[in-house]
Amino acid sequence: MSKKSKNSFAINRRQLLASSLALGTAGVAKSVQASEVGPSNSPPNLPEWTTYLGDGVDVAPYGLPSEFESHVIRRNVPWLTATAESSVNFTPIQNLEGFVTPNGLCFERHHGGVAIIDPNEYRLMINGLVDREMIFTLDDLKRFPQTNKFYFLECAANGGMEWRGAQLNGCQFTFGMIHNVQYTGVKLSDIVKETGLRPSAKWLLAEGGDSAGLARSIPIEKALDDCMIVWAMNGEALRPEQGYPARLVVPGWEGNMWIKWIRRIEFGDMPYLTREETSKYTDLMTDGSARMFTWVMEAKSVVTFPSPENPLNKKGLHQLRGLAWSGRGKIRRVDVSLDGGRNWNTTNIHGPILNKSLTRFTMPFYWSGDEMLVQARAVDETGYVQPTIKELQNVRGVNSIYHNNSIATWLVNKNGSVENVRLG
Amino acid sequence: MSKKSKNSFAINRRQLLASSLALGTAGVAKSVQASEVGPSNSPPNLPEWTTYLGDGVDVAPYGLPSEFESHVIRRNVPWLTATAESSVNFTPIQNLEGFVTPNGLCFERHHGGVAIIDPNEYRLMINGLVDREMIFTLDDLKRFPQTNKFYFLECAANGGMEWRGAQLNGCQFTFGMIHNVQYTGVKLSDIVKETGLRPSAKWLLAEGGDSAGLARSIPIEKALDDCMIVWAMNGEALRPEQGYPARLVVPGWEGNMWIKWIRRIEFGDMPYLTREETSKYTDLMTDGSARMFTWVMEAKSVVTFPSPENPLNKKGLHQLRGLAWSGRGKIRRVDVSLDGGRNWNTTNIHGPILNKSLTRFTMPFYWSGDEMLVQARAVDETGYVQPTIKELQNVRGVNSIYHNNSIATWLVNKNGSVENVRLG
Repeated sequence: MSKKSKNSFAINRRQLLASSLALGTAGVAKSVQASEVGPSNSPPNLPEWTTYLGDGVDVAPYGLPSEFESHVIRRNVPWLTATAESSVNFTPIQNLEGFVTPNGLCFERHHGGVAIIDPNEYRLMINGLVDREMIFTLDDLKRFPQTNKFYFLECAANGGMEWRGAQLNGCQFTFGMIHNVQYTGVKLSDIVKETGLRPSAKWLLAEGGDSAGLARSIPIEKALDDCMIVWAMNGEALRPEQGYPARLVVPGWEGNMWIKWIRRIEFGDMPYLTREETSKYTDLMTDGSARMFTWVMEAKSVVTFPSPENPLNKKGLHQLRGLAWSGRGKIRRVDVSLDGGRNWNTTNIHGPILNKSLTRFTMPFYWSGDEMLVQARAVDETGYVQPTIKELQNVRGVNSIYHNNSIATWLVNKNGSVENVRLG
Repeated sequence: MSKKSKNSFAINRRQLLASSLALGTAGVAKSVQASEVGPSNSPPNLPEWTTYLGDGVDVAPYGLPSEFESHVIRRNVPWLTATAESSVNFTPIQNLEGFVTPNGLCFERHHGGVAIIDPNEYRLMINGLVDREMIFTLDDLKRFPQTNKFYFLECAANGGMEWRGAQLNGCQFTFGMIHNVQYTGVKLSDIVKETGLRPSAKWLLAEGGDSAGLARSIPIEKALDDCMIVWAMNGEALRPEQGYPARLVVPGWEGNMWIKWIRRIEFGDMPYLTREETSKYTDLMTDGSARMFTWVMEAKSVVTFPSPENPLNKKGLHQLRGLAWSGRGKIRRVDVSLDGGRNWNTTNIHGPILNKSLTRFTMPFYWSGDEMLVQARAVDETGYVQPTIKELQNVRGVNSIYHNNSIATWLVNKNGSVENVRLG
């Protein structure tokens, strides 16, 4: 890497005075006079990396990010779980661009470590209330009609540490239990055409092949609507920690149901009441009752710039950036407030706008150096509007840590630093 | 990893006799009788990976593919270039699913090694026929309005080794000089709004910051239409070999023009006639003249399964899979022939179907064990139909290695192996 100082071009800079349609009077760029550039019109102060041959052998068969991006990694919170065999690794959502999460950075949660499965030995069994109980190899699955879909996966506990007021000061730990990739697989409804389904089948049990044997119940309507068994994400095989060689995809529903290393689907006439839908992934209400089967991940959004990890480093024009999603369909609109919810601006949402997929939004804003209270509020195609945390807590109280899709607030301080705060 | 034999479920299998709507009489899956499954309805012969805790510490901050996917890598052809500082690494297109190429597997071609650039020292200069010559930092660029687009990048030489009849027997080396990612960046037209553009500006020169100083001319209409300066691919920073921290994107046009490590754009009133558009990336015709500026990558397609690397391993129903693309817009249709072009079938193309992006197609077919001659033929939204190589050579002869977008033929032998052959 280069040894040159950071100021190699400094002598050629002066403040931009001209205004422009694109950037108003913000003056985001530096101009040089033609005479400063030199007679040949080639840039002055040739940087070191232009003067020698680059490394040819550094192009790996499977490539990795630049050494300058070593801060863009998944991170965990060791105290969240008792052992590493039951852990959580958060996506650095504050560093993402567009709407694709690179596979190496995808959020994952495992309950019994990462099972390592030889794809040649992998089997998926379908049993219970079907006409023909069957076992499929991975090759068998690939002989069914294929489907390719972008879907977000979000943990029901994403943002859960915020319920009772603990404000983790980072975008990654408050919003990073999510990822968004293009899945390749087969529709569960097509597999069921092969096994047949008895009219009495109303629910299924999906069971993982890891040592935790993680299992969840899913109603038949959802199973036959858009659930998939998938073997690829973003064009390549599933990563081990995402259930290699095959996992269940339950679009728009909480990530815990997307059984990894899936080995069995049993059809039955009632829910199976597994540990993961009784003692966990239920919402304890203030009256002591617990809501079960709160599957759908409602509309939500996050401002990734500015954010605690991405402060403002100068006044003037910036592009606010963020992501929005809804488990009920497409994002229709994302509004942003810079004054804690008093005034709202409609952002640009970037296509393709896909069903149950992360959607990128951006909005130009001018920072004068004053404090700002930045909020985003997603609206999905059903008309649902992302609520405040007060609205959620009026209904649910503060016992449950799940399904916090409330509007978050970033406080931008006068020095440009950004904090996670609670309003009201 | 597991030590169990590959036949752990064999005793429970019998041939499927029942027909089904989904898979006809192909019998792709094995059924089991309920009594063979055991009283608890849990699968027999619990595999080893279910019986012990998985590895928790294996979940890396930046994850990598499964150990069972070590064959899915970029590969190069050492004799193609004199030194490793000028090399080509081919995408394993035969292993891709969906339409996203994972960043670690993206085709790349470099002419002076991979330049390693500190993003804090990166500068982009705009000079020549503009009102204000300017130098931008990476942060400056990020203050412009952002755009997110999926585009394919294909080298003009992709398939070039086929022109004179050399049939490389692999999908990777005949079709792998291509990738498809979601780019994040700024439109060149927005940068030009900031610098201003003189009416006399008709062309630009884009110049790389690597030691090769790779440079190409682009007409102003294209530059202001859809060209972008990008800093991210598939949600994360550009990879070093893709021009970190910033490259030019020239949608639908040959990859050589997508200048990596871009350091300068000069506007002029005529093309610059650089080495890469005179002695290279021109098409030598049979009469000795050379066609210059043959930029557009015309409609093309590849069947990735079956293919030389992906033979057929049993008779019955399969899903043919492939990718199609066009530098002129969206793919409208992909036809597939199994008999060397006598009969054609329309395939399923998978959405979202995007402008100048790879598009996935699939088609069910039944393999009886006979020889097949498999071909795909893409049609784009302009109505252009992918030609045969004979049609191309009638016009161009065989001198040039560039812009071979002809229909390829895979011969499927009776044993299921697949060869790259030339028809006619």
